Amino acid sequence: MTFREAVLAVARQNQSWLCVGLDPEPGRLPPHMRADADGVFAFCAAIIEATADLVCAFKPNIAFFEALGAAGMNALDRLIKLRPGPPVILDAKRGDIGSTAEAYARAVFDHLGADAVTLNPYLGGDALDPFLRYADRGCFILCKTSNPGSADLQDIPLADGRPLYMAVADYARDVWNVHGNVGLVVGATQPDALIAVRRACPSMLLLIPGVGAQGGDPALTVRAAAATGEPLTIVNASRAVLYADDGPHFAAAARRAAQRLRDSINTALVAR
Amino acid sequence: MTFREAVLAVARQNQSWLCVGLDPEPGRLPPHMRADADGVFAFCAAIIEATADLVCAFKPNIAFFEALGAAGMNALDRLIKLRPGPPVILDAKRGDIGSTAEAYARAVFDHLGADAVTLNPYLGGDALDPFLRYADRGCFILCKTSNPGSADLQDIPLADGRPLYMAVADYARDVWNVHGNVGLVVGATQPDALIAVRRACPSMLLLIPGVGAQGGDPALTVRAAAATGEPLTIVNASRAVLYADDGPHFAAAARRAAQRLRDSINTALVAR
Repeated sequence: MTFREAVLAVARQNQSWLCVGLDPEPGRLPPHMRADADGVFAFCAAIIEATADLVCAFKPNIAFFEALGAAGMNALDRLIKLRPGPPVILDAKRGDIGSTAEAYARAVFDHLGADAVTLNPYLGGDALDPFLRYADRGCFILCKTSNPGSADLQDIPLADGRPLYMAVADYARDVWNVHGNVGLVVGATQPDALIAVRRACPSMLLLIPGVGAQGGDPALTVRAAAATGEPLTIVNASRAVLYADDGPHFAAAARRAAQRLRDSINTALVAR
Repeated sequence: MTFREAVLAVARQNQSWLCVGLDPEPGRLPPHMRADADGVFAFCAAIIEATADLVCAFKPNIAFFEALGAAGMNALDRLIKLRPGPPVILDAKRGDIGSTAEAYARAVFDHLGADAVTLNPYLGGDALDPFLRYADRGCFILCKTSNPGSADLQDIPLADGRPLYMAVADYARDVWNVHGNVGLVVGATQPDALIAVRRACPSMLLLIPGVGAQGGDPALTVRAAAATGEPLTIVNASRAVLYADDGPHFAAAARRAAQRLRDSINTALVAR
């Protein structure tokens, strides 16, 4: 089963296009948990257990685990190996050349065992190739990110009139998607970009961060990004779920937050 | 002392603008060394010891250490802590947003203790900021990379006539360099880009990979990239030094290879 098939199957089964992002900050864990790699593992494992039937994917961001050194990377490895059902998208935003890209691809897919990864397109197609060759895994290429600074480069107008991020969307569709495993990252804070990218790439998976704490509205996001038929629109929320409550009942609160987000996505999908 | 001051001081002392890239592949270590993280540490430590008086910097690429899991990251940590004299540029090509960028910056500068880092500009200025704020460290922003695929995005003509990589060079000079700690990565395989970037950024440090195994000619590179006065041109070679000989005398062979590269850079600098 490919990543695309797996995420579609889980989305149908759980009736959910919500992805929960695992961006654990030791300083924000509930006070009864240890503010270290073991605490981060226990916290994330509890979030996964509390929400696995409400999501279509989990998205751990490797930076938060790397920041805890070797013990953090070990915690990430153990979390991925929990195999909770929904596939795991490793948010790594990798982009490097030749043998380095090959080393990253092995690290992400073979050693850590992630089902999908996020990739930075600035270095071009040969930097993406070592990942794309894993045809059963997903590759989400950064297109229009959710941060204010994304305008600096991604919105630059090209000689042919497109903004740069649309050149990335067109490359992804026409050149990089030879194995059918490419998706795009477009921030929920960028509704115009969501509409333009979905129009250009009607059958591609979109991974959409920026809902919740970053201010993106789930209903607006879904109306802009959902494809005809199967929505193909993975809506990620991280802090709004992880830190819904900072007391001992954080997992139950995370479950309620995930439920609310899932429901508002589904309501918007029905109304589209 | 800032990174820029440190690298200039070492370049003067060692009469060298050569940087040795540490991209260790366990399968390419000499047969008497263990093909694991301990072998990688021993190999890189021997290379560092054999070349420390011939270079202006070392550039470990984090991907090769991550690929070996927690033991690999531990080896990288120990290598940086050797403090061999020349500053350490961590080749990480990071680019992420908000709190993630902050986590990466802490990991690179506080935990690993690198003197400089390579960064990907696709996400824009706010993704670079957490790194740039470390005013005493160096931040090398990817501008025109040495791989063939760099043409895909980096050469795209903008509406104002510049290729995208020149927009990155202009941003770096006019917007991102508020602390005076920004440099640019331009591949040795791209002499026209080297000339254009150096013209636009006459006083910026350039980090130039792609000499040696990737085919870039050191003399041509230096003639295209050296600034007026102090060259400000860090020329990186990795495989041509690391794997100069695969027998037990690999370190002596690496030293000879580094010496030859340093000398050809210096000859070209005198002739410019």
